[in-house]
Amino acid sequence: MIQLSLIGIGTGNPDHVTLAGVRALQAADRILLPRKGEAKSDLVDLRRLLCRNLLDEAAQSRVVEFDLPRRDGRDDYLGAVDDWHAAIAEVWREQMARHLPRGGRVAMLIWGDPSLYDSSLRIAGRLKGSGRDGDASLEVSVVPGITSLQVLTAEHRIPLNALAEPVQITTGRRLRERGWPEDAASVAVMLDGGGAFQALAPEGLHIWWGAYLGMDKQCLIDGRLAEVGPSIVERRAALRERHGWIMDVYLLARTPLLSRTPPLA
Amino acid sequence: MIQLSLIGIGTGNPDHVTLAGVRALQAADRILLPRKGEAKSDLVDLRRLLCRNLLDEAAQSRVVEFDLPRRDGRDDYLGAVDDWHAAIAEVWREQMARHLPRGGRVAMLIWGDPSLYDSSLRIAGRLKGSGRDGDASLEVSVVPGITSLQVLTAEHRIPLNALAEPVQITTGRRLRERGWPEDAASVAVMLDGGGAFQALAPEGLHIWWGAYLGMDKQCLIDGRLAEVGPSIVERRAALRERHGWIMDVYLLARTPLLSRTPPLA
Repeated sequence: MIQLSLIGIGTGNPDHVTLAGVRALQAADRILLPRKGEAKSDLVDLRRLLCRNLLDEAAQSRVVEFDLPRRDGRDDYLGAVDDWHAAIAEVWREQMARHLPRGGRVAMLIWGDPSLYDSSLRIAGRLKGSGRDGDASLEVSVVPGITSLQVLTAEHRIPLNALAEPVQITTGRRLRERGWPEDAASVAVMLDGGGAFQALAPEGLHIWWGAYLGMDKQCLIDGRLAEVGPSIVERRAALRERHGWIMDVYLLARTPLLSRTPPLA
Repeated sequence: MIQLSLIGIGTGNPDHVTLAGVRALQAADRILLPRKGEAKSDLVDLRRLLCRNLLDEAAQSRVVEFDLPRRDGRDDYLGAVDDWHAAIAEVWREQMARHLPRGGRVAMLIWGDPSLYDSSLRIAGRLKGSGRDGDASLEVSVVPGITSLQVLTAEHRIPLNALAEPVQITTGRRLRERGWPEDAASVAVMLDGGGAFQALAPEGLHIWWGAYLGMDKQCLIDGRLAEVGPSIVERRAALRERHGWIMDVYLLARTPLLSRTPPLA
């Protein structure tokens, strides 16, 4: 029996891990730590830092690093993701079989929260459903973690939703294809390769943007989209160039988010 | 100068507080702890428990309890909320003036996360904007916390979003009035007075429901909405009767959330 614990660790600030996350990390027999290639080594470094800070010296040897397969860059995005998840599931299986042949507690440190635009639950589901020996005895648990959206709103000191109004969480791809979603007074955008908000008519929209949230190099910009949109696009390109990678999210709203009263429906 | 720290504390499991939350609590000169009336004393108890567990004995005296004004039950919901927030802001101001007349660090423990259907940022904004002496020197910071939605998805071991699909977070009131939002493959519902999902045609919908999330009395139900919807309504009424209060949230989806491929667009 493998007990797999998916621990949300937040997005860059090691203090954003919860006490439950600390306990789950400390209780694990093995911590699997995937390496994602040099460009995103900062993301692996946070995981290494958490293990160094939160595990005692004897427990450091429980940390097992391994290389994650790369995603195929082909045009068929969803097909490429499907193949990639299958390959990752296979690597997880190998690592668990090698390091815990008789079962035990495995922890994986998940950027943000396993519930939001993260694939670890789906990949774990593949391990469970694949029908090989022993797979039936995989038990998954989730420890929630702070998402980049929560760090975004905390750092800008704003709520995600306008008073009593719905909020939509969506992807850059979707925003570009479909525009402003119906029935939402505010829209949070994740996984944007850059500047999807340019697909919107900027009039009347406000944006709160953040990159490298929770990290020392965190960068925040907010203002009327018509005014700050172009400088966000520029700044994003420059930061990506300088650091070799970027992760950013943003919130758009039609109405002041801190307003005391909701917009007229 | 008052430095007000709004600390998200999660929703019932004291281990869901983050290390940043612990540090902010320990650094505060005063912790303001609002009492919400007897029915919801469980919600105050979690805050008391966190203070007891995380502060040393000398620091316990920094905790200041006070009674929160009640919300007017009148029909004009938004008007009642507006008046209520004004009354709360006045009580905060009094408490700060009484306990920290020369300024200092004030912490408030916020259920869930201050960004999601929570009014503390708006109430703090009223203090700032009201123009009385000293108000200009209020500085607000936010420590993000785990929301009930994150505990819901963690306990059900599901993601919030279908693969690459948007998710809408909305209120029971809105779901009842407007039905299923456009452009969303999954919908998370908060602040539902009970059974707003009954306004939807249940065919093809799945529901993941949770009450008292993170607490010992946590209750989870999931299944096809057509099958489990009525039992959720019944169970909710019975639990509310038994405990004197209830807080619950749920997620609805048209497609399997753990599916490897998104629905056809």
